[in-house]
Amino acid sequence: MARLLALCLAVAALLPGAARAEDGYDLWLRYAPLEGEALERLEEFNPQIAVDLYNREDNPTLEAAVRELGFGLHSLLGEPARSRPGGHGRILIDCGSHPTGGEQYFVTTDRQGIRIGGPSHISCLYGAYALLRELSLGADPRTINLTSAPAMPLRMLNHWDNPDGHVERGYAGRSIFDWWNLPDRLDQRMIDYARANASIGINAVVVNNVNAQAYMLEPRYIAKLKRLADAWRPYGIRVFLSARFSAPRDIGGLPTADPLDPAVRAWWRAKADEIYAAIPDFGGFLVKANSEGQPGPQDYGRSHADGANVLAEALGNRGTVIWRAFVYSEHNDVDRAMQAFDEFVPLDGQFAPNVIVQVKNGPIDFQPREPFHPMFGAMPNTRLMLEAQITKEYLGQGTHLAYLAPMWEEVLHADTGRGGTVAQIVQPVGMAGVANTGSDRNWTGSDFDQANWYAFGRLAWDPSLTSEQIAREWAAQTFSRAPEFVEAVVPMMLGSRQAVVDYMTPLGLAHQMATGHHYGPGPWVCDLARPEWNPCYYARADRQGIGFDRTASGSNALAQYAPPVAAGLAADPDYLLWFHHVGWDQAMPSGRSLWAELVGRYDTGVAAVDAMADTWAAQQRHVDPQRFRAVAENLVIQQAEARWWRDASLAWWQSINGLPLPEGTRPPQHELDYYRSLAFPEAPGQ
Amino acid sequence: MARLLALCLAVAALLPGAARAEDGYDLWLRYAPLEGEALERLEEFNPQIAVDLYNREDNPTLEAAVRELGFGLHSLLGEPARSRPGGHGRILIDCGSHPTGGEQYFVTTDRQGIRIGGPSHISCLYGAYALLRELSLGADPRTINLTSAPAMPLRMLNHWDNPDGHVERGYAGRSIFDWWNLPDRLDQRMIDYARANASIGINAVVVNNVNAQAYMLEPRYIAKLKRLADAWRPYGIRVFLSARFSAPRDIGGLPTADPLDPAVRAWWRAKADEIYAAIPDFGGFLVKANSEGQPGPQDYGRSHADGANVLAEALGNRGTVIWRAFVYSEHNDVDRAMQAFDEFVPLDGQFAPNVIVQVKNGPIDFQPREPFHPMFGAMPNTRLMLEAQITKEYLGQGTHLAYLAPMWEEVLHADTGRGGTVAQIVQPVGMAGVANTGSDRNWTGSDFDQANWYAFGRLAWDPSLTSEQIAREWAAQTFSRAPEFVEAVVPMMLGSRQAVVDYMTPLGLAHQMATGHHYGPGPWVCDLARPEWNPCYYARADRQGIGFDRTASGSNALAQYAPPVAAGLAADPDYLLWFHHVGWDQAMPSGRSLWAELVGRYDTGVAAVDAMADTWAAQQRHVDPQRFRAVAENLVIQQAEARWWRDASLAWWQSINGLPLPEGTRPPQHELDYYRSLAFPEAPGQ
Repeated sequence: MARLLALCLAVAALLPGAARAEDGYDLWLRYAPLEGEALERLEEFNPQIAVDLYNREDNPTLEAAVRELGFGLHSLLGEPARSRPGGHGRILIDCGSHPTGGEQYFVTTDRQGIRIGGPSHISCLYGAYALLRELSLGADPRTINLTSAPAMPLRMLNHWDNPDGHVERGYAGRSIFDWWNLPDRLDQRMIDYARANASIGINAVVVNNVNAQAYMLEPRYIAKLKRLADAWRPYGIRVFLSARFSAPRDIGGLPTADPLDPAVRAWWRAKADEIYAAIPDFGGFLVKANSEGQPGPQDYGRSHADGANVLAEALGNRGTVIWRAFVYSEHNDVDRAMQAFDEFVPLDGQFAPNVIVQVKNGPIDFQPREPFHPMFGAMPNTRLMLEAQITKEYLGQGTHLAYLAPMWEEVLHADTGRGGTVAQIVQPVGMAGVANTGSDRNWTGSDFDQANWYAFGRLAWDPSLTSEQIAREWAAQTFSRAPEFVEAVVPMMLGSRQAVVDYMTPLGLAHQMATGHHYGPGPWVCDLARPEWNPCYYARADRQGIGFDRTASGSNALAQYAPPVAAGLAADPDYLLWFHHVGWDQAMPSGRSLWAELVGRYDTGVAAVDAMADTWAAQQRHVDPQRFRAVAENLVIQQAEARWWRDASLAWWQSINGLPLPEGTRPPQHELDYYRSLAFPEAPGQ
Repeated sequence: MARLLALCLAVAALLPGAARAEDGYDLWLRYAPLEGEALERLEEFNPQIAVDLYNREDNPTLEAAVRELGFGLHSLLGEPARSRPGGHGRILIDCGSHPTGGEQYFVTTDRQGIRIGGPSHISCLYGAYALLRELSLGADPRTINLTSAPAMPLRMLNHWDNPDGHVERGYAGRSIFDWWNLPDRLDQRMIDYARANASIGINAVVVNNVNAQAYMLEPRYIAKLKRLADAWRPYGIRVFLSARFSAPRDIGGLPTADPLDPAVRAWWRAKADEIYAAIPDFGGFLVKANSEGQPGPQDYGRSHADGANVLAEALGNRGTVIWRAFVYSEHNDVDRAMQAFDEFVPLDGQFAPNVIVQVKNGPIDFQPREPFHPMFGAMPNTRLMLEAQITKEYLGQGTHLAYLAPMWEEVLHADTGRGGTVAQIVQPVGMAGVANTGSDRNWTGSDFDQANWYAFGRLAWDPSLTSEQIAREWAAQTFSRAPEFVEAVVPMMLGSRQAVVDYMTPLGLAHQMATGHHYGPGPWVCDLARPEWNPCYYARADRQGIGFDRTASGSNALAQYAPPVAAGLAADPDYLLWFHHVGWDQAMPSGRSLWAELVGRYDTGVAAVDAMADTWAAQQRHVDPQRFRAVAENLVIQQAEARWWRDASLAWWQSINGLPLPEGTRPPQHELDYYRSLAFPEAPGQ
């Protein structure tokens, strides 16, 4: 018996059963119990929720607000989740009942307690989330005073989710939408998705891929969509569908999809009527037309405006057509960066009032860094909306830690020289973000990618928020309020996107990713069917230099910008190789040659990732074991892949320029042939 | 203020945050708090876990047993999950340390408490799960006495999971295996998967689809597999790989994969050595060869034995080749049901000792009901293993409630007439089940499909358990111990598979499913490239009658069975149309014509599903809201689809036999053309 030992049954790290662990599912809505003074203040306030029920019984939006407050307050107080016997700190929910009265909210405090108000029910839900956010961050309930209105009417997610469950450019598992079992089966995840969106002010969702299947316009899918619309309506979310332009032919039995054909117009009208009969607040259609093989009005010799307007006519004053400006043609030799501008700007003023043209942040395609798209400001008579990509197709996909708010902030704050910043141009319309959600338990594939969903919503609500403010509130709600944690992790987040730029495509390089899946480096690729699919098209590296001359001596894409803006861009070192072909030995402001500068940037990127890993390793005491390990394991991947990017890129540039590495520089780990031989047929998201 | 009303913040159903709800993730390992006398007995026993630590510190299997007991006992006692101050009811874990000493366990009680023992560490883990199961079911800890040994050495799951995350015949979302991020990232799910398997005695896992990618034998995948093997080893699970037979040519750079080629033999040997260097207890290879387009030894004029033996030679005494007998040839006019027997039985005695031939339960392909495969008993000098399908490819896929244990029990208890029952034939070897797991939160797509995973493991451990015993223990652990619940739900489960048989393919019909995805009825399909892919091949319906004549006047498949068994099968009404072509007006034992009998069976199936829905609706008070609703919604789908199967089938048979429906029979809801027009291009699992 001397050799018996009772083992301590410590739990936490050792516990089986992820349901009880922190697995990321709760996102920023964890409402972790308060401690110290913040807890004492809330306990002293002793909240009790009350609803002004006059004429608004059973309103599901108010019910959602009450539920969230009840759940959140209990959780912040560290209480078991059951009714409180009447506290004295009343939280009164008292909103107007105009369904379209506006979305602003106020949360005020007086002697009677806290009052959440606004013109419509959704105001109260937004106000409830704002109150919970502030309390989560430690605000004093006795002095709370919040008032806010969204800057933009449309704060939208675009899901590139296919009905078979595959997510194009998805790195978080399968689609969250279980189309197959809808409408009969509705996952709890659909409610929690709506809660997450409402908590950050997102109010519109395009549920399917812009590369759309026509059959999603068929009755059996309308029934499915209706179930989602009904589930999300209390959370202020309107549903939109991506529509395939050739649907009248694909599923309508018509011989054509020509937008000027009366039968086609009638078909779209009838289809819209059918949808509105099921979903009275249906948002409208998103269309990718004549782009990357999708059908469109140009198939019939019609313009984008012709195409958009026929759908707009079908929707009437009930909804909106969102028409993507992401076009480039296989029969157009002009610099790809210029084609959307060339094609759309002449159409300014021709789009119906309920058409929005959706423009990506930059003129190529969601690269780690692009200058803002020259269309912003160039179409004063057209409603333009910004399209950002939350999913990190080109920024490390599901594993690399890259906080994207600084990238979006950069674009939103860019002065177009034509009537304001990008934010000011799009504010009357809205912002769309290509979602990064999936069936992974933590929603976004990695814990830190939740920050990008969060930041997108917060910026669409208020583009004047800084990346740092958003990072601080996200990190504190999601992981830990400990000041040491926040002070360490927020700077790490803020620098993370620049790290990606540096180790992937520094100094204005773009689109050096491998073909198709865009996973890993492929700067040597130069044999694809269309020139603008090739990395070599973008880098234009030769024995003498590297970079795409977009000045007057080259494609002159610079001329698409307002002149003073163009001058600024031309001189911006971050866009050096975006706009210029530069000799390898040209001297940089640093005094180093371009080649040495470029090598230095790759090394800076790699070093930044190493520093991020160190920063994270020091946070173990602040973070639950499961998420701590998950983030740490991702950083191991990112460290390896940053080196891979650097080494493969350097090996390739050396094969072209024949230059030695600057003294003291670590040579690539492998020969170029090794990097060229790597193949990943199963890479996700394609 | 008079119109103010404080809303009650009831939680449970209203609670946001599925993490706190019952979402099915915990499977049968919920350890729901005991109540009443069972709780009092366990409280009085006051358990304290002790480990005999002599010479076995840090053994991860014993650690897993301690963790599970600690977690489970706390949970059963309804205590917060933290250490107990020393109780007096000692649970002593005291197992031998022979890694291959055997898997049997005993759990005994004496004055000193409970003792969990056995020859090896895994004995104690199995014993811990057995103890927790018994306590969960309300057993008295003072009189507990369990002893059990597995009937079969190999209790295996076959995952038809592709490395890109798609699961062939998967209806529960994406693959649970995150190959892309392995080896660096290991999901918590991989640990909980191992716990679930260990709790039911599963000890072997083939991680990838039998339609295999050769690149999974490459070094980067061996590293990934090693991480899984390391994570699962404490839970007694050995990993196996599906190997593509042409791998020496596909990835090995050889010009051939001819098994008799010395370079091919050397390649497999080197590959096996490479795997064993990483995974010393690697289980071996599963191979689908010369079947449905897969490469195999016959491509080189060699036999299945030649092919299997070269891989067996490569593994040597370290591992096992499992060679599938699921073959049928596009160049063979013989009844498909006979081809595997014809091809394999002559090879009896030619397979190396470390080769197992894996035989599906029936001679076609996992139909709702098939007679047992005639190969069982017919190869006395070959190690035969049973292959069952847990995923419900042909039994309602992800939505229909069909408890499969009665089907497996039927097969296991079938007397082959050649040396025993199927269970006795395969007991020296093992059972494999095609897994039904996926990334859905509840693992299996529907809550009741968890029962099939559970039942498979329990039957492989002990084929003498009855379907009812297994259903009782599963239902009580998974949902509710309330006697009223168990008494209602267990009979519902037991009858559910027969309901599927009745509304899909009654009276011995088979393979009437739609093409490819096998979702829904397609009895009219008769134009596919290979005759045996067509439903019409199996039903052979004509103006006069229906059914496949497999007697001496037909294919004589009956002759593949031992004579007395053949006589029994020929007379079994459940296999009527499997073995006979029967006139529509032939009188049945019921007195009705075959046609009336057939119609009656479809109606019986539909009525059974309606009764299941009623049974479930009455259980609301016993089941948490989220799972109650999920099951109820699936039953709505099943009710509709059972009618669809019945109506479409009847409409089709009527179009052939021209007969009216028996008096009082409800006509199909739609015309035949409607059913034929239905298309589901995005149906899952294909």
